[in-house]
Amino acid sequence: MGSMENKVIMERIHALRQNMKAAGVHYYLVVTADPHGSEYINDHYKEREYLSGFTGSNGDLLVGEEECLLWTDGRYFVQAEQELEGTGIILMKSRQQGVPELEEYLKSHLKEGMKLGLYGFCVNASLGKRLEKIMKEKRGGIVYQKDLAESVFVDRPTDSAAPIRILEKGLTGESCGEKLSRVRKKMEELKADHLLLSGLEDQMWLFNIRGGDIACNPVAYAFTLIFKEKVIVYLKEKSIAALREKEENVRFAKENGIEWHPYEDFIGELPGVLQQSEKLFGRKARMMLDPGVVNYTVCRIVEENAETVEAKNPTQVMKAVKNPVEIGHIKQTYLLDSVALTRYIRYIKEHKTEGLTESKAAEILEGYRQEIKSFQGVSFPTISAYGANAAMMHYEALPGRDEVLKPEGIYLVDSGGQYEGGTTDVTRSIIMGSITQEMKKHYTLTAVGMLRLQNAVFLYGCTGRNLDILARGPLWQQKMDYKCGTGHGVGYMLSVHEGPQNISWRSGNVKEAVLEEGMLVSDEPGVYIAGSHGIRIENILLCEKGECNEDGQFMGFAPLTLVPLDPEGIDPVYMERSDIEALNRYHRMVYERLSPYLSEDERAWLKEQTKSLECG
Amino acid sequence: MGSMENKVIMERIHALRQNMKAAGVHYYLVVTADPHGSEYINDHYKEREYLSGFTGSNGDLLVGEEECLLWTDGRYFVQAEQELEGTGIILMKSRQQGVPELEEYLKSHLKEGMKLGLYGFCVNASLGKRLEKIMKEKRGGIVYQKDLAESVFVDRPTDSAAPIRILEKGLTGESCGEKLSRVRKKMEELKADHLLLSGLEDQMWLFNIRGGDIACNPVAYAFTLIFKEKVIVYLKEKSIAALREKEENVRFAKENGIEWHPYEDFIGELPGVLQQSEKLFGRKARMMLDPGVVNYTVCRIVEENAETVEAKNPTQVMKAVKNPVEIGHIKQTYLLDSVALTRYIRYIKEHKTEGLTESKAAEILEGYRQEIKSFQGVSFPTISAYGANAAMMHYEALPGRDEVLKPEGIYLVDSGGQYEGGTTDVTRSIIMGSITQEMKKHYTLTAVGMLRLQNAVFLYGCTGRNLDILARGPLWQQKMDYKCGTGHGVGYMLSVHEGPQNISWRSGNVKEAVLEEGMLVSDEPGVYIAGSHGIRIENILLCEKGECNEDGQFMGFAPLTLVPLDPEGIDPVYMERSDIEALNRYHRMVYERLSPYLSEDERAWLKEQTKSLECG
Repeated sequence: MGSMENKVIMERIHALRQNMKAAGVHYYLVVTADPHGSEYINDHYKEREYLSGFTGSNGDLLVGEEECLLWTDGRYFVQAEQELEGTGIILMKSRQQGVPELEEYLKSHLKEGMKLGLYGFCVNASLGKRLEKIMKEKRGGIVYQKDLAESVFVDRPTDSAAPIRILEKGLTGESCGEKLSRVRKKMEELKADHLLLSGLEDQMWLFNIRGGDIACNPVAYAFTLIFKEKVIVYLKEKSIAALREKEENVRFAKENGIEWHPYEDFIGELPGVLQQSEKLFGRKARMMLDPGVVNYTVCRIVEENAETVEAKNPTQVMKAVKNPVEIGHIKQTYLLDSVALTRYIRYIKEHKTEGLTESKAAEILEGYRQEIKSFQGVSFPTISAYGANAAMMHYEALPGRDEVLKPEGIYLVDSGGQYEGGTTDVTRSIIMGSITQEMKKHYTLTAVGMLRLQNAVFLYGCTGRNLDILARGPLWQQKMDYKCGTGHGVGYMLSVHEGPQNISWRSGNVKEAVLEEGMLVSDEPGVYIAGSHGIRIENILLCEKGECNEDGQFMGFAPLTLVPLDPEGIDPVYMERSDIEALNRYHRMVYERLSPYLSEDERAWLKEQTKSLECG
Repeated sequence: MGSMENKVIMERIHALRQNMKAAGVHYYLVVTADPHGSEYINDHYKEREYLSGFTGSNGDLLVGEEECLLWTDGRYFVQAEQELEGTGIILMKSRQQGVPELEEYLKSHLKEGMKLGLYGFCVNASLGKRLEKIMKEKRGGIVYQKDLAESVFVDRPTDSAAPIRILEKGLTGESCGEKLSRVRKKMEELKADHLLLSGLEDQMWLFNIRGGDIACNPVAYAFTLIFKEKVIVYLKEKSIAALREKEENVRFAKENGIEWHPYEDFIGELPGVLQQSEKLFGRKARMMLDPGVVNYTVCRIVEENAETVEAKNPTQVMKAVKNPVEIGHIKQTYLLDSVALTRYIRYIKEHKTEGLTESKAAEILEGYRQEIKSFQGVSFPTISAYGANAAMMHYEALPGRDEVLKPEGIYLVDSGGQYEGGTTDVTRSIIMGSITQEMKKHYTLTAVGMLRLQNAVFLYGCTGRNLDILARGPLWQQKMDYKCGTGHGVGYMLSVHEGPQNISWRSGNVKEAVLEEGMLVSDEPGVYIAGSHGIRIENILLCEKGECNEDGQFMGFAPLTLVPLDPEGIDPVYMERSDIEALNRYHRMVYERLSPYLSEDERAWLKEQTKSLECG
């Protein structure tokens, strides 16, 4: 193979270095982010991808005068190695022993007096402040006002401004007015005059609106300033125009004290708004914001013009705890989505010898979802990965460059839909024919881990850190690990990844979220053997209250995902008696819930797939 | 029974209230602490016990003008209820839903402008500062200079000043000089000029000395100030005199740059020392201290005279990670201690019909330990608890008021020894005859939890919070819990409870400690049914490195405790196949390691006790 030079990328980096020189900047950092800290971003903001050629959804690029490095996480090690080949960019594997993280690298490699450039409007404030501190200690500093990569990024896509709509109460279960008063109560508790929201999902949730500015994520670009008496929402001009067309929207705004201002005016208006409050109060305004969400530039403006009250956005947990109306829709949506995926699994099993490509297979799956009336599109690009491709956690099959499915080995499909009534996410690994004993062991241990977390019983107060070992333990016992968390929160007609709750053994910088009744969390252990195979089994779980007795409030999960595991992957020798019982119990539930939606043929097939295993 | 008034306690509280009135204090807080934040304290400092009548090792007493409340944790609920009867003191059960903690109570019940009294020299600085903040917000304040309970506490025991000795290198594996240079390196990293140590175990470890000022804990009262060039150790006059008698001790001090000053001079000298440094440096001295360990009064003096560098004492983790010399002694010590306990279990089983009292039984156990040459005394008061008494986690049997062992139910013994070569701690629950099916289930689930944690495999970076569910999970699955952590660190010829590592599912205020190779941790799940029975099974585990591969550094535990579990308590119906295998494996190890130390009779008995269980 040899390592060919990747001239395109090398030239882009070269152009950036010219801009750096002109700006007197020694290192330039390009993170993967938009002004709102969104996980998935509009192509308009994909500077890091453009500059490095690495297409994964997570990565930080640091360009120095000499060296160029890219940090990404374990989901992308294989993919990044391939995509960075010939670019001269060094891959830094995050969280691997002996690999310094970005901030450690800056601390140890940057010389005294050096300047670090970054575009503050697209860098999270917490990160920006830590970098500011590091560079201050080096008696250098950061330069954050200008996007030095802007002129390099030619033919840049425009950021879209898709139509916006207001959801009816039958879908949301709580009005914007009710939500606003809960938020204002939290503001009062913290003695805040104003609250700044910049996270898109939080704003969509609060106003019961949905947009379409980011692929797969029904969000609209927005900033929100909440006052005691009114609310200013900064939206793209097109969105505002569309909203004003309907009289009921104008009434909605009036009822809730909402003013619509142009998105582009936000940065310009912010200082004036704060100075006006200061005049009114006779003291600096107390502005509440979450430095983990807001961008660095906005944070600096607030700090210069107000007193900052740093706190988690109260909308975050409120949004994560689904209300009974939402849960009703979610349950029905997951049931229909499970039917679609189950049909697809049967299709794949029956057509495995027909030379389907990975991308064609993904299309077929989308076809099954399209049969559901409330389906609106996929909730993220389907991961349809055969054989060794499945070892890349976030592999995307591109037509023409993808693999053909064969009647052997394992095929992994991780997919989800946006529905009028919920956002789904599910992964199954399908046994295509003969597999090795090792693969069978890996499949079984993954299934066991998934089921153990699903059946967890725990006291109220636990976070995902307490529970992660239930899913991961069976692999740890074999001295194996998957290099990512076990689970993430899931949105409601919003993003497929949604905090603050998660299932992960590592302690992050942020305070962990207690698992509350009504939260959703994914449960997706896996095995990834580079060059060979990948296995992941993912159910979405609803956190519920269980027995409450003198020992406390017990909690548990109910699986929303109801899709059979593959009996051809299971070897009971790797299971405890209770694991076998758990699998049988889950399979019984899958059959009972799905069968009313299936044809006789399908039912017979599912009966076979979900047949009880004998113990021991 | 009726509730008789407890006049003695009521009069003591009354006398304290008189002092409070005179001092202009509305509430007075008496915590359970000495000036060093020791967990176990000399009787001299047991003001809270004297004032309330509650003898448990943990409790905070808050005396108001009207009400009087005592907070303690789940280990003591049953005992505290009994001991507080008739005193008018309200028991506040810590960490139970709906029960406000001390600080919440102060926030919600104290009126504006009220003053809270406490004796700052015996209150931890972190707590003191939080209380200071609460009272400031109430526009009141705290009064901390005077011990208002001193005049009430008549016939107060003097604080002892037992002989001090310096350990030889054969026991410690690292000289004081080597330890000091590791500590000074940490001071340099944090740019600290001085380090203040007030925790007794840390000082004993650093100087390789041992004292005898607290029952069961071989520590000497001391404060230490570490400078770059010298060290001042404040010790009781008697200790200094004893040290000076030996020429080698004087040489030791000289070699390590140590000055001995009288303990009583510490508070008086501290401001001058800091002011002198300030003069020398031409700026405030940077004094490193751990506000979680140091007392409030000392902390205030430092804040008034220096710049405080708040950090965990570096000695804490250093002491917790045992070196190979220590581990060698510890392994041998635990083996001998296990032999003694195993002999004792056999004795109890063979003499169960003879009407032994709980306290007599504890004496017999101590007798077996005394047969070991290196034994120096118990490491904590033995918990010898029969039947319902075992439901009190820290029950102490008092001769004349204790139970008689009968040939039925369960007898719990939690005990340990101080040895020249280690500090031990072990609990076994002994089946005395017929037990109910419920008891058998509880015993088995406890054993299963203990074994699962003992056999944990985990990645480096885990803390006890990640692992707690392994031990607790089998009980949680039955909607049961024990109201305490699963495990604590253990000292080496020091305290039986020693941080920073622990096994607990709850997140505390402090940063959790990563489990490091060479750390010891206890593994002691349990079931406590008030009025019926108590079960606890405790092994001490040594944290070890396991396989290191591309997925990371795997870690595990080796059991130091080698004492059989009671086969009469085990019902395999509550066990998975791997649990049965784990029990058999442990029992084989127990038999192999202990048998060389046993007589033929004993060996035959142990063979029977450790017989393999059949699977399924």
